[in-house]
Amino acid sequence: MSLDNAQIKPHERLAAALAVDLDAVNVLIRERMASKHAPRIPEVTAHLVEAGGKRLRPMLTLAAARMCGYTGPYHVHLAATVEFIHTATLLHDDVVDESGQRRGRPTANLLWDNKSSILVGDYLFSRSFQLMVETGNMRVLGILANASATIAEGEVLQLTAAQNLSTNEAIYLQIVRGKTAALFSAATEVGGVIAGAPEEQVRALFDYGDALGISFQIVDDLLDYGGSDATGKNIGDDFRERKLTLPVIKAIACADDEERAFWKRTIEKGDQRDGDLDHALGLLAKHGTMEQTQLDAIDWTKRAQAALTILPASDFREMLHDLADYVVARIS
Amino acid sequence: MSLDNAQIKPHERLAAALAVDLDAVNVLIRERMASKHAPRIPEVTAHLVEAGGKRLRPMLTLAAARMCGYTGPYHVHLAATVEFIHTATLLHDDVVDESGQRRGRPTANLLWDNKSSILVGDYLFSRSFQLMVETGNMRVLGILANASATIAEGEVLQLTAAQNLSTNEAIYLQIVRGKTAALFSAATEVGGVIAGAPEEQVRALFDYGDALGISFQIVDDLLDYGGSDATGKNIGDDFRERKLTLPVIKAIACADDEERAFWKRTIEKGDQRDGDLDHALGLLAKHGTMEQTQLDAIDWTKRAQAALTILPASDFREMLHDLADYVVARIS
Repeated sequence: MSLDNAQIKPHERLAAALAVDLDAVNVLIRERMASKHAPRIPEVTAHLVEAGGKRLRPMLTLAAARMCGYTGPYHVHLAATVEFIHTATLLHDDVVDESGQRRGRPTANLLWDNKSSILVGDYLFSRSFQLMVETGNMRVLGILANASATIAEGEVLQLTAAQNLSTNEAIYLQIVRGKTAALFSAATEVGGVIAGAPEEQVRALFDYGDALGISFQIVDDLLDYGGSDATGKNIGDDFRERKLTLPVIKAIACADDEERAFWKRTIEKGDQRDGDLDHALGLLAKHGTMEQTQLDAIDWTKRAQAALTILPASDFREMLHDLADYVVARIS
Repeated sequence: MSLDNAQIKPHERLAAALAVDLDAVNVLIRERMASKHAPRIPEVTAHLVEAGGKRLRPMLTLAAARMCGYTGPYHVHLAATVEFIHTATLLHDDVVDESGQRRGRPTANLLWDNKSSILVGDYLFSRSFQLMVETGNMRVLGILANASATIAEGEVLQLTAAQNLSTNEAIYLQIVRGKTAALFSAATEVGGVIAGAPEEQVRALFDYGDALGISFQIVDDLLDYGGSDATGKNIGDDFRERKLTLPVIKAIACADDEERAFWKRTIEKGDQRDGDLDHALGLLAKHGTMEQTQLDAIDWTKRAQAALTILPASDFREMLHDLADYVVARIS
């Protein structure tokens, strides 16, 4: 039975085109998440790695490398590296956010304990580092080291800035670049680097990943106040966790005194009562900030697509273009 | 005023001989623990990095490199790398162990929160990784990546094995190699590698660091049941945290039924009452396991010193020899 492209989602088309590579990535991930001495490690990792994530980040690396004509073996190592870094940050994030649910399932910190999540995260981060070293490519190591530092810095920034009402769109963008876009852009950039692509193509791949990651996170933050529960998160989690995201930042920017007092009480002081979430949603609706945020996401999607134009036309380029549309399609 | 060598402790002699290098390491550490965007990061790091640690691990790297005739700049990067990895693991350990005190001062997780300790630890680990990349030496990266994975694996193993009465000396050794010796041996090994030392010398440096680290950790575990409070820990912390260490493992190995029931209740089940620590100390004394453990530590010290013999005679070799004696001298 054949389906035409219009019926298949872009990430599924990518997964089909990269099926052989993705199988190799999954084999490598399973091999490297093992531990001879500490069985707790593969238990915790398997819970997360095999929970049906879309493997979006590793696919970005594989697609970028293939698009640039790479025929060697190391794009698989780099894709597994990127997935391990992602998994390690999820484990630590869930401890930091005290989350109980991820992708619709209980989190590792709930099923085991915070200690296991912290230490298994450290283990996966170290394993990712070993995988990169195997590529023998120093530039790739530099890119991923910088991305890791940017991710951690973004998380710390979020910790201190998130509950501060003076957090503006510029700071939000910095946090988003750290917590999400840094790994997306590193994923695409290392694909180009390992393939030995010309500098302007490597730069374009970085820009694509950066803009795609920003769009992706804006949409995630939007879904937290609206969309379906497809993310496995509950509506209003960010509000309850007092995390300032774009729809709220925009609403605060045009709040009157009474509204400002509401945000101050609920987000800055954390004094939340029954009905507060509904009131918050009402304020977002009143100021139209959900729609404004959606327009921002679409704008970043268009920037991602624009970055692709200097790359040679190919099926992969087309799929990455469509993937950017799909990221925002989640909210429409 | 001049002091003869007998009056100056070996790590102080090392620090004096490496003073210029150590200054460069401290400058680099301060430079790299900064964060343009997240001031929380240097606050937390400074609390720990400037708390008067002995810089033992970075000195091992510097001494190994100098001993092997290195004249380049990168031993400083590697020493800072090793200190950052160490600091990152301390931050995470204190969260995992729920510690309130370290080096006689309140821990970062107590002064700030667990979230900051987790994320700043991740940041320092990433920064350490950037520092290594700057050396451009792929072999050094491989050694430190492997050490990082061994450290995390050892910590997870400790998590699952520590409260299990069937944990024997072999498992204890594995945990100790992970949590302590892996970084000591990597610290000395990379010093030799960056200096381009012959393979047999690199191997000897690894063996020295490995044995020194094991001796160091055995002594630490011994001090927890005896020595002074120079470590800034409280007597009996390991007992209260239900962590099986060598003096207790040895006592359990020759316990009668009643004693076994005591260890089972206090360590395995965690049901501890007033007077239990004193009773535990009495059992260690009865079976002479403190003395046996001390002999083990001395044995590892001798192995460390034996490893040094194939290295060319030098002041640094002598200081590393004496340093191994000093590690066990803490308990005599």
